[in-house]
Amino acid sequence: MENETVKADYPLLSGIDSPADLRRLPVDELPKVCAELRSFLINSLASHPGHFASSMGAVELTVALHYVFNTPYDRIVWDVGHQAYGHKLLTGRRDRFETNRTLGGLSGFPNPKESEYDTFTAGHASNSISAALGMAVASSLRKDVPPRHVVAVIGDASISGGLAFEGLNNAANSNSNLLIILNDNDMSIDRPVGSLNTYLAHLTASKAYNNLRYRFSRFLRRHKLVTDSGKGMIMRFNNSLKSLLTKQQNIFEGLNIRYFGPFDGHDLQTVVSVLEDIKDLPGPRILHLRTIKGKGYEPAEKDPSTWHAPGRFDVGTGEILKDGAGRPPKYQQVFGDTLVELARFNDRIVGVTAAMLSGTSMNRLQQVFPERTFDVGISEGHAVTFAGGLAKEGMKPYVAIYSSFMQRAFDHIIHDVAIEGLPVVFCLDRAGLVGEDGATHHGVFDLSYLRAIPGMTIASPRNLDYLRHLMLTAQDFDGPIAIRYPRGRAEESVKEPMRTLPIGKGEKLRDGNDIAVLSTGPITSEVTEAIKRAEKELDIRVAHYDMIFVKPLDAEIVSEIAEKGCPVITVEDGISEGGLGSAVTEMLSDLGSAQHIRRLGVPDRFISQGTPAQLHHLCGFDADGIFQAIKESYIKTQTDSTPTE
Amino acid sequence: MENETVKADYPLLSGIDSPADLRRLPVDELPKVCAELRSFLINSLASHPGHFASSMGAVELTVALHYVFNTPYDRIVWDVGHQAYGHKLLTGRRDRFETNRTLGGLSGFPNPKESEYDTFTAGHASNSISAALGMAVASSLRKDVPPRHVVAVIGDASISGGLAFEGLNNAANSNSNLLIILNDNDMSIDRPVGSLNTYLAHLTASKAYNNLRYRFSRFLRRHKLVTDSGKGMIMRFNNSLKSLLTKQQNIFEGLNIRYFGPFDGHDLQTVVSVLEDIKDLPGPRILHLRTIKGKGYEPAEKDPSTWHAPGRFDVGTGEILKDGAGRPPKYQQVFGDTLVELARFNDRIVGVTAAMLSGTSMNRLQQVFPERTFDVGISEGHAVTFAGGLAKEGMKPYVAIYSSFMQRAFDHIIHDVAIEGLPVVFCLDRAGLVGEDGATHHGVFDLSYLRAIPGMTIASPRNLDYLRHLMLTAQDFDGPIAIRYPRGRAEESVKEPMRTLPIGKGEKLRDGNDIAVLSTGPITSEVTEAIKRAEKELDIRVAHYDMIFVKPLDAEIVSEIAEKGCPVITVEDGISEGGLGSAVTEMLSDLGSAQHIRRLGVPDRFISQGTPAQLHHLCGFDADGIFQAIKESYIKTQTDSTPTE
Repeated sequence: MENETVKADYPLLSGIDSPADLRRLPVDELPKVCAELRSFLINSLASHPGHFASSMGAVELTVALHYVFNTPYDRIVWDVGHQAYGHKLLTGRRDRFETNRTLGGLSGFPNPKESEYDTFTAGHASNSISAALGMAVASSLRKDVPPRHVVAVIGDASISGGLAFEGLNNAANSNSNLLIILNDNDMSIDRPVGSLNTYLAHLTASKAYNNLRYRFSRFLRRHKLVTDSGKGMIMRFNNSLKSLLTKQQNIFEGLNIRYFGPFDGHDLQTVVSVLEDIKDLPGPRILHLRTIKGKGYEPAEKDPSTWHAPGRFDVGTGEILKDGAGRPPKYQQVFGDTLVELARFNDRIVGVTAAMLSGTSMNRLQQVFPERTFDVGISEGHAVTFAGGLAKEGMKPYVAIYSSFMQRAFDHIIHDVAIEGLPVVFCLDRAGLVGEDGATHHGVFDLSYLRAIPGMTIASPRNLDYLRHLMLTAQDFDGPIAIRYPRGRAEESVKEPMRTLPIGKGEKLRDGNDIAVLSTGPITSEVTEAIKRAEKELDIRVAHYDMIFVKPLDAEIVSEIAEKGCPVITVEDGISEGGLGSAVTEMLSDLGSAQHIRRLGVPDRFISQGTPAQLHHLCGFDADGIFQAIKESYIKTQTDSTPTE
Repeated sequence: MENETVKADYPLLSGIDSPADLRRLPVDELPKVCAELRSFLINSLASHPGHFASSMGAVELTVALHYVFNTPYDRIVWDVGHQAYGHKLLTGRRDRFETNRTLGGLSGFPNPKESEYDTFTAGHASNSISAALGMAVASSLRKDVPPRHVVAVIGDASISGGLAFEGLNNAANSNSNLLIILNDNDMSIDRPVGSLNTYLAHLTASKAYNNLRYRFSRFLRRHKLVTDSGKGMIMRFNNSLKSLLTKQQNIFEGLNIRYFGPFDGHDLQTVVSVLEDIKDLPGPRILHLRTIKGKGYEPAEKDPSTWHAPGRFDVGTGEILKDGAGRPPKYQQVFGDTLVELARFNDRIVGVTAAMLSGTSMNRLQQVFPERTFDVGISEGHAVTFAGGLAKEGMKPYVAIYSSFMQRAFDHIIHDVAIEGLPVVFCLDRAGLVGEDGATHHGVFDLSYLRAIPGMTIASPRNLDYLRHLMLTAQDFDGPIAIRYPRGRAEESVKEPMRTLPIGKGEKLRDGNDIAVLSTGPITSEVTEAIKRAEKELDIRVAHYDMIFVKPLDAEIVSEIAEKGCPVITVEDGISEGGLGSAVTEMLSDLGSAQHIRRLGVPDRFISQGTPAQLHHLCGFDADGIFQAIKESYIKTQTDSTPTE
């Protein structure tokens, strides 16, 4: 019955269980497939939230790629993969699409473990060219027959990342059969920045010239006036034509990559025919398509930032359904407002982010102090080194980047900030298990990799008040300091005036002698709940400390715990290797303690998507898991201390 | 007396104690200063080895910069800093120059802790543009009077790194007073790769055109036919001239950075006059200078790779003095030969490096299998993601990168290799304290940051045999694996045939019950020596285990040690936070052990330069330090177990 409805609403799509089905359609049916795909996306995402606008803009491109290329034999490598929902729908995952981004369901990004059509892990920007080049080179070394096409699909924001440039710089130097599709919607999550983007807009302005150039080159090839075999011929032809038209050279061709475009990425016939035309040309090529983020749904076209990942919405009215009314604010909101508050009184404060202006709420600083706010685009490494330069000359940069993306800047933190002890404040947004975005986005490594860096101070607030306290503390601290805080809403609103915290000091939230629990970050509230239950059910007294600082670790608290001699439990929303648990274990060992220590945190494997609560439960550090750990530790002590017969 | 000799040999240089002295000379004396600088460098470096050829090539540029700019008020940011010896000699460090790269002496790279003229930490490539942009923006926010000039000096190899591109992309978007000097000697340590370098060579070929363009622009400005105030005017002028001459647009100008060059970087008068001419133009500019690596010393000009850091040499004959005759080979040599040996029998093996072909000895693979060897240039991130693509399509990439440079690829290891468990072999060359290159180059973080990554296998050979065993083991292992090994010569040559080692298994080298020492890597030989001494002097029996694998850690060995119950000492040539010591402490804690554990490793601070032996001693893990630790642990046990009265 339900299947019948699907067939009625999506007469073509319902017959496409793999790209092979798509390829059996005549080309003039494809626009209908696109219309059905859009309709499916709108109806599904209205009630099952996900990344909306990027996928809407890539519908024609997606259909054309699977139509022209022989997937999965030919490889499509999506960059980031915000735009790959259409791809998922065409590759056998339509029936499961409503499980998108949920526990046990589909991943929100291309995921090789999920489908052979998802050729490479996507989630962090700018990796597609390098990965696709590797795949193309491998295919060429293996001498695959027929030759395998490898296509990287990269957005105009992703291509501004240093990794993409390194990929281009190397792709151009190889003879591999690599096609790069630049899906240029002139947007990342926010408006893109950087001169490369200005340049792309400029290319679009010279569209007539480029189109002429393309048509002329096709004419010459079709009439065998030039050959495809030697790159030199085409290049010479291009140069001649350029001289003829007295127009400028293209940057990509300056890098020795043949450039085609820009074309209208929503003109399906053109995209298909250009792809057919250039797919067998030798060597690296770039095809520049202009698309509109949110294409086909008017509210999204008008405000693509908001519709990047809008949450639930009303299809008819285009109204985004708010779910936060009357609830405490998000960590991001308080971060953004506090930064403005601090900046008003301290003109040394500047904000730096890397294409996460709205995500981190640094747009609030931008509204008030545009000249002191720097969105550097998808360039985490540059963001950190640039902040190092600012700090070296007396500024106080707050660098707000999602924890998992900050991994890109690990070396820059060590080399360009920590060695010289520069006072940069690293604001690690979306730290811990982020939920629906899954394995590529969890911010679980930061405590471990930052703790290894000499001179680094690392702190995490347990609530919004402490976020504000730490932001103020960081302002007056003369050295590198990282503040990690989670995505989303807090449990309580701001309650206290801002104050400076002593560096390296934790706080005792509750005293007791049967068990000691040490935690860091907002997961502390789960500990509180677990302790309440444990004290009631087990009739014990549990000491609870919020360590606040993972580095330097509060030696007084650890000594106090060593004196208690009771079992110890550490709780952190991060990977168990090398974080708070390791730090406490090491220090207790140094003190000669023989206490039983249980380290709760993210286990030593990659965790897929789910709600944060589900994932905390899965990893055993929600209130229930912590309670079980307390119980087991307590029972173990009782058993251990029972005299044997 | 010695001073008199200096005055006689270096009549001008001996009077220059700071750039202010230099600036008092008439411009036509500067070539003599250059000649003296070269002579000083040759004579000094012949007996006190260092980075030779880069600094020789940058002599005129260095003199011109300090002559034209008001250093230290104006900021010069050197990239990497191989070329900054001349800068050190002009900025008050001539008398101490023979302490270069030695314990307590001058750092081999620009170091802000050493001199106010060294404005930013240098050592890892490609950071100068981002750092300088930060400094320029800070100066502009502070409204410094007079306006402060900020100059980034970057080589043609460094500019190919993704970080440099991110810097350019952002610099172009700002109005900051930033001058980028591209010191283009067409070399990194080896020949540079990538299409950007091809492009730079191409620019040089169009020198006549660019020179004409520059002279015409100067003419117009001098005669007030255009103004400097608005960037638009100049840009329009450039575009007009371009149309006029029907030549191509420059990539840098495509990115909206005004380009000047290329000029002969050894023509001092020209460099000074161009710098004077463009120093006050508004906005970001790039000055392209062609230089010759090793300029002024014929043997170095002929073979700049060898003369990058030649060691001691005979000034007269140009003969490089070999110090290794009759000694065991370097780890690098055995790595290179073994890779060739494995590749002969396994055509899935490919080699990837990032501008470290000769440093890692991957040039040996290149000689035999050029099509299976990939030098991607200074692009560590791309190297790893590219290897991920290769592995995804069935290849077995060995990625050889220095440990401290691999930090740049931390996110790429997690995201593009580990999440999918791809079988990439990470060959971490120069792991541990590297010695003379100092804080920026020590490979001491790898154990910590790799151990936090799920599914990563991490091993370290104690000698050349085990390097070969691990390289073979990695070939047959289906997942990401890292092998870390040090710079330089081993203590013994290869003695055993290659064999596969069981993953995650350590080896007991000696049994005993009084103390247990667990080590990893070549530092194991220092442990052996310390144990011999301890057994003799203290009359105890010490157990010694080479863990080989830091992850997975050998649980059987750790259980065996827990049963012994004796004091435990861990020894690793890496940072103490999060490495072997942490892993052992955690596992012993999990086993409920109350043993005394002493973790020897690099302490929680940045370590400057010195010989490896000096630095091991400083950090307390040479044979003597390990002996002391054994002694202290033993005495402590004796004291603890002595019944109190």
